[in-house]
Amino acid sequence: MAKTRSKNYQKKIGQVPGSIIYTGEKSSSKIFIEAIDYNKDQSTEKELETIEETFDYKYSDSVTWINLNGLSHVNDIEKLGTHFEIHPLVLEDIVNISQRPKIDEYDDYLFVVLKMLYYDKDEKIISEQVSFVLGKNYVLSFQEAEGDVFDVLRDRIRHAKGRIRSMKSDYLLYTLMDAIIDHYFSVIETLGDKIEDFESDIFLGNTDNTINKDIRDLKKEILRVRRAIFPLREVISRIEKYEGPLIQKKTKTYYRDIYDHLVQVSENIDIYREMIWSLMDMYMTTISNKMNEVMKVLTIMASIFIPLTFIAGIYGMNFEYIPELHYKYSYFILWGVMVAIFIGMIIYFKRKKWL
Amino acid sequence: MAKTRSKNYQKKIGQVPGSIIYTGEKSSSKIFIEAIDYNKDQSTEKELETIEETFDYKYSDSVTWINLNGLSHVNDIEKLGTHFEIHPLVLEDIVNISQRPKIDEYDDYLFVVLKMLYYDKDEKIISEQVSFVLGKNYVLSFQEAEGDVFDVLRDRIRHAKGRIRSMKSDYLLYTLMDAIIDHYFSVIETLGDKIEDFESDIFLGNTDNTINKDIRDLKKEILRVRRAIFPLREVISRIEKYEGPLIQKKTKTYYRDIYDHLVQVSENIDIYREMIWSLMDMYMTTISNKMNEVMKVLTIMASIFIPLTFIAGIYGMNFEYIPELHYKYSYFILWGVMVAIFIGMIIYFKRKKWL
Amino acid sequence: MAKTRSKNYQKKIGQVPGSIIYTGEKSSSKIFIEAIDYNKDQSTEKELETIEETFDYKYSDSVTWINLNGLSHVNDIEKLGTHFEIHPLVLEDIVNISQRPKIDEYDDYLFVVLKMLYYDKDEKIISEQVSFVLGKNYVLSFQEAEGDVFDVLRDRIRHAKGRIRSMKSDYLLYTLMDAIIDHYFSVIETLGDKIEDFESDIFLGNTDNTINKDIRDLKKEILRVRRAIFPLREVISRIEKYEGPLIQKKTKTYYRDIYDHLVQVSENIDIYREMIWSLMDMYMTTISNKMNEVMKVLTIMASIFIPLTFIAGIYGMNFEYIPELHYKYSYFILWGVMVAIFIGMIIYFKRKKWL
Amino acid sequence: MAKTRSKNYQKKIGQVPGSIIYTGEKSSSKIFIEAIDYNKDQSTEKELETIEETFDYKYSDSVTWINLNGLSHVNDIEKLGTHFEIHPLVLEDIVNISQRPKIDEYDDYLFVVLKMLYYDKDEKIISEQVSFVLGKNYVLSFQEAEGDVFDVLRDRIRHAKGRIRSMKSDYLLYTLMDAIIDHYFSVIETLGDKIEDFESDIFLGNTDNTINKDIRDLKKEILRVRRAIFPLREVISRIEKYEGPLIQKKTKTYYRDIYDHLVQVSENIDIYREMIWSLMDMYMTTISNKMNEVMKVLTIMASIFIPLTFIAGIYGMNFEYIPELHYKYSYFILWGVMVAIFIGMIIYFKRKKWL
Amino acid sequence: MAKTRSKNYQKKIGQVPGSIIYTGEKSSSKIFIEAIDYNKDQSTEKELETIEETFDYKYSDSVTWINLNGLSHVNDIEKLGTHFEIHPLVLEDIVNISQRPKIDEYDDYLFVVLKMLYYDKDEKIISEQVSFVLGKNYVLSFQEAEGDVFDVLRDRIRHAKGRIRSMKSDYLLYTLMDAIIDHYFSVIETLGDKIEDFESDIFLGNTDNTINKDIRDLKKEILRVRRAIFPLREVISRIEKYEGPLIQKKTKTYYRDIYDHLVQVSENIDIYREMIWSLMDMYMTTISNKMNEVMKVLTIMASIFIPLTFIAGIYGMNFEYIPELHYKYSYFILWGVMVAIFIGMIIYFKRKKWL
Repeated sequence: MAKTRSKNYQKKIGQVPGSIIYTGEKSSSKIFIEAIDYNKDQSTEKELETIEETFDYKYSDSVTWINLNGLSHVNDIEKLGTHFEIHPLVLEDIVNISQRPKIDEYDDYLFVVLKMLYYDKDEKIISEQVSFVLGKNYVLSFQEAEGDVFDVLRDRIRHAKGRIRSMKSDYLLYTLMDAIIDHYFSVIETLGDKIEDFESDIFLGNTDNTINKDIRDLKKEILRVRRAIFPLREVISRIEKYEGPLIQKKTKTYYRDIYDHLVQVSENIDIYREMIWSLMDMYMTTISNKMNEVMKVLTIMASIFIPLTFIAGIYGMNFEYIPELHYKYSYFILWGVMVAIFIGMIIYFKRKKWL
Repeated sequence: MAKTRSKNYQKKIGQVPGSIIYTGEKSSSKIFIEAIDYNKDQSTEKELETIEETFDYKYSDSVTWINLNGLSHVNDIEKLGTHFEIHPLVLEDIVNISQRPKIDEYDDYLFVVLKMLYYDKDEKIISEQVSFVLGKNYVLSFQEAEGDVFDVLRDRIRHAKGRIRSMKSDYLLYTLMDAIIDHYFSVIETLGDKIEDFESDIFLGNTDNTINKDIRDLKKEILRVRRAIFPLREVISRIEKYEGPLIQKKTKTYYRDIYDHLVQVSENIDIYREMIWSLMDMYMTTISNKMNEVMKVLTIMASIFIPLTFIAGIYGMNFEYIPELHYKYSYFILWGVMVAIFIGMIIYFKRKKWL
Repeated sequence: MAKTRSKNYQKKIGQVPGSIIYTGEKSSSKIFIEAIDYNKDQSTEKELETIEETFDYKYSDSVTWINLNGLSHVNDIEKLGTHFEIHPLVLEDIVNISQRPKIDEYDDYLFVVLKMLYYDKDEKIISEQVSFVLGKNYVLSFQEAEGDVFDVLRDRIRHAKGRIRSMKSDYLLYTLMDAIIDHYFSVIETLGDKIEDFESDIFLGNTDNTINKDIRDLKKEILRVRRAIFPLREVISRIEKYEGPLIQKKTKTYYRDIYDHLVQVSENIDIYREMIWSLMDMYMTTISNKMNEVMKVLTIMASIFIPLTFIAGIYGMNFEYIPELHYKYSYFILWGVMVAIFIGMIIYFKRKKWL
Repeated sequence: MAKTRSKNYQKKIGQVPGSIIYTGEKSSSKIFIEAIDYNKDQSTEKELETIEETFDYKYSDSVTWINLNGLSHVNDIEKLGTHFEIHPLVLEDIVNISQRPKIDEYDDYLFVVLKMLYYDKDEKIISEQVSFVLGKNYVLSFQEAEGDVFDVLRDRIRHAKGRIRSMKSDYLLYTLMDAIIDHYFSVIETLGDKIEDFESDIFLGNTDNTINKDIRDLKKEILRVRRAIFPLREVISRIEKYEGPLIQKKTKTYYRDIYDHLVQVSENIDIYREMIWSLMDMYMTTISNKMNEVMKVLTIMASIFIPLTFIAGIYGMNFEYIPELHYKYSYFILWGVMVAIFIGMIIYFKRKKWL
Repeated sequence: MAKTRSKNYQKKIGQVPGSIIYTGEKSSSKIFIEAIDYNKDQSTEKELETIEETFDYKYSDSVTWINLNGLSHVNDIEKLGTHFEIHPLVLEDIVNISQRPKIDEYDDYLFVVLKMLYYDKDEKIISEQVSFVLGKNYVLSFQEAEGDVFDVLRDRIRHAKGRIRSMKSDYLLYTLMDAIIDHYFSVIETLGDKIEDFESDIFLGNTDNTINKDIRDLKKEILRVRRAIFPLREVISRIEKYEGPLIQKKTKTYYRDIYDHLVQVSENIDIYREMIWSLMDMYMTTISNKMNEVMKVLTIMASIFIPLTFIAGIYGMNFEYIPELHYKYSYFILWGVMVAIFIGMIIYFKRKKWL
């Protein structure tokens, strides 16, 4: 991963500011452009062949959602940008996929970047950049690759479900963002499950050194999720405070709602973070407890048999005059003494609760 | 628990915003609706059969408290909401039981969500969502299940105890919230007792690995309580700052009072949190102290008997010419030497304070 | 302690807000009421028998300090409150001794709660609640039990020492609070001494498990002191910002002075806190150092004598053909070898700096 | 390093404020002065011999960038400063290379200090100070030594690439700062790689004490980078808020862009910081795991052979009456017993998962 | 030290506020008063015998610096204060040497307290209080004892070096404070050197328990320095914001400069603090590493010789029928077996990298 990131940065360093350079890896061979146009009464849905077909929507009265997948097609994005009069820095940000979530306010449009989060099949977190440009009567959305997160929305527009058809582009942007943020809940849930798995693992006495690495990976995952989600609160809160014609007052209630969702997600992340940070302590004490147990076994074995061996050693000596050697019952008496010592030791260790 | 939460979220993901979907588990077979209507001079108390019976209270001059238990009856709640002209997002929040405590200000009413906390019989913390809608002359309250926290209040209204009968709906809301917040004190008390139990447990030398798990569970409990209580301060403080017709100036003194209570509870939680976090350190040093003791026993036993065994070994050798073997008192002299070594060792370890 | 607190809370839960219920333990059999009245020219000092005798002071032009000890006499306090037109919530707070330090501003008076701190004879910290009501020409003070902290003041008023006789009630309140805050210095000093005692204790190698408990108790003590002192800064700073007739501009310089004192005390507390938190680390490393030493002794003893014992064992074998057994000087040569091994080991461990 | 810093400070202590004293080490024998002058239509580039040649540019209408390398030539810098009417404190700051990044606003110019970061060939971080003075139609830049970070820029001006030729001096300053900040990305990347190397090193079981030192060096590196980068955010944000004639409104969008970059870098640094701080925990548990393993080997060996040796010792005793000694199969039976004990022990340890 | 502080506090507790009581220890037998008076054209320097000689300077037009050493002479200070119309609380603060750095604004003068820091000959940090009263045309400075920190300044005034002679009293105060703050750099440098010494000490394997104490002392030192320096930033920043006749606008640039210095020093302190806090971790892992090494030696010795001793024990048994005893080459074969076991063990431990 580090390598990839590295390459991305290098592509950019030393470039003229505002250069529109795609920094990602997924170079989809084909660009996918889709235009969904609707008003109260009707809706049309079209897959477009060329970027030029989008141009007319700029002037239509109905609400248009232009969805573009494939950020490697920088030329098309530049054409689109020029036609819709978007600042070059915005276009640069759209294709530079290492943006933080942010909002930039321009006179005629708002630019919003955020991150879509999901787990891939290897249980690794994927963070994909989605950008929106909100104009008076349109929303442009830009994704690295085709996803299915917006399917529900298309359906809703088609069948005039919910309020969406009777609302403006600001509500469309809300529903798009809401769809992304809803997915955060399932991500943090998976995170929570992972942490609980570790906990029971460690609790059951697994102290492999690999746990070190796994905890660390989990920490990194949480840091990445945090980084994708936390700045978004600021974004939404700036939308709420935005005093321009692009966001209607009545729509702000809805943005308030996703703000509340974000705070909920953030709180969960912080709790998970605290939990995972303290997993290390739990791991450490578990190791220490195990070592304690090992030491006890050693100490008990040594403490019992070393004195006994010493006694046996005494009567293995070859002195000519050892009176005990010649008494008939010495051997049996000695066994008695040894058993007594043995039992005494056992009782002693029982008392100390080592056994 | 994780599973439950997971299911709740999934119910919601991909839904039209504003969909009124109950995310809890307790689907009480019957809805319970109760209306308490009072003014300075009289009070009536009624259990209602259908939601429609509540509709007239909207226009009455007296203060009405409509209490509804059973959030799974979303249809009734929707009807109520429509009649009382409540925003769909509010209705969605009422039945979505994973809300953070919050307040939403609308033109004609205030919406407040908070958490009721109590320990169930298994000593586990239960956090139940309670929502209030404060209108000019009514308070609607929504609970998951029937509880007894408001019993005191009913009594007070019935018998005109305290100021309540001569005050408006804003004071009613205050007393309802006060009843809930009062219970927080007993929760944090139980928490405090649990921590002290752990402390003395660890101090008495209990270093079982289960303590790891117990401390962790306690940490989680505190995090949950924190999460239920901390955002509430913001809620109350926004009520204090609220500049509208729904809250009278003289009632704000009372809200200030529950704000003070919340700060007190919060402070306690933070102290407990710090205490429990440092329990781990105490646990760790206790383990280390125990290990130290184990090691000392081993070292003392080994240091005393290993040299003695060596000496015995010497005179167990079968060399033909070992002069000492033939002296008559060798054996007794050797015993003397061994006892001297033994005593010397004991003195040495006493000096080191290991004995 | 936890038990006590618990009882206090229970007394309150479910009560009508504004119920005046004493939550402390010291139910002094007798109430003590004292009125000190003074102006530039003269001062009178009286112990009053009944609460009603205080009533006239409300209308006197001179400055009056009414000091009441014994919060369990709630009836008297209620009468006083009613006569002086004090809000019921204030009266509730006066007798509820688990208040945080705070200030409440009312139109005609200011209400201030703070904590008096001192060590009792068992070296335990006692935190006692003192409340003040500052009116135009009077200060009411409420204490749980008779203390001697204000003795200096009485003396000063009597003998017209300092500025006090020529100032208004706001200056009287300042001197009362100053007397309490001055005592904080001696409390944090004792705290500092305790920490230094622990430090030298641990440094001298005391690693008893009781230290765990003692450090913990100290932590709790610091948390309690913090809790009593930190909110007070906010109180004083609100007095400084207060824009009403009760506090004169020239008196604010004096409040600024106690604010500075509080900041000084707070800083010290935070330093102590950091010191005590890091005591645990010091304790931990001391234990580890000791264990290291124990292990070294064991390793040295075992490493020296186990090989020697092995050699002795060899020549204790009963094989018929062991050539060495029959050479006359074998035994002495073997002793030489053993001594050589012994010395070699000693040198080896010296080099490793284990000896 | 400490020594160097020390010398720098001493040079300054006790000096008249505003004394222009170079505190660095690189005393380049020759000063290098370069002037690049451009407007929309043309650009000239000149290396200047004397500082006086720069004086005329102050009055030219075109945008001029005067780049000066070699801060030890304080006389030249003073002359330049005097001519361009720069405050003595600014000149002092230019040559005192231990400045924090900062911006000082004066009536006719802005003064900006920041740090250029790069790794030298020994993989050590070098932080070099660069100062800018932004006037109406010029930018003065001051560097310790000649670097190549601005080469790209020269090229861009020469060939009229990007917007730069049609913009004012404020945009020139932006591109200069952008060039420096772009390099931060490659620095934090190297940092990230280093941390990952350590992680895998420790994970593979390397617990050499040198890791202690290496982690510590890495910590210091991060602290240095943090210190160079974090205050810069404040600098940029003050440029954005600056309300004067020197920065045009349309250029602020570009400054906003580098602000975003800085936030991104800062976030990464904080993540790395957290990762490296927790490396120590990982290291500690790895050591403990290893010790655990060592202890297990010891315990297993001792627990198996000490009892067996004891048994052998028993029958090595020289009592006259040990009945077992005379039975023919005793020896073989004993071997059987010993093997049984051995196997039993192995099974026991397998069950405990120590083997 | 604790004792001293304790005494200081007790001197104060229970005193009339505004009592002028010296709380330090250095009761210099003689007071030292010095007056330096200057304007653009000339300067006079005088050591004064009595405090009354200073009185006339209050009315002179030139700038006067009155420097007073010896805070135990409270009477003189009181006389001075009365004549210069200084508030009693200010006089109290001047002689109470446990002040935090602070600024108090009065109508006719500013009162500034700060701390002079230096290492005494025992390498202990000394923090001495210096107070300034800035009037329209004078600066009064108060020190506990004679120091040499201001010598440079006297020289500068005498010889009209720098701007000082042409500036007002506000600039004089600036240079005085600047002289003190410049010394902070050398203090933090010494601190930095100490930390590095510890680091290399620990890294070289010194794990004496005394390090515990030394680290702790260093922590305390840093806390003391922090406490002396951090509040000073607030003081300077309030001077910058001060809107009165005492500080001219053009002088504020200079105060901004010392503010920058303070931020630099503070940053360094925080870095050192972080470094020293993490020294403990480094110390801990070093101890653990050493213990690991000790354990390895023990385990290797025991694992090799315990089995060998067992084998020797076997053939030391006295059974009548041990066939091996009678074969001629048994002894030599056994030696072969033992050597094989020995070598096998060595290889095993080499593989485990314990050797």
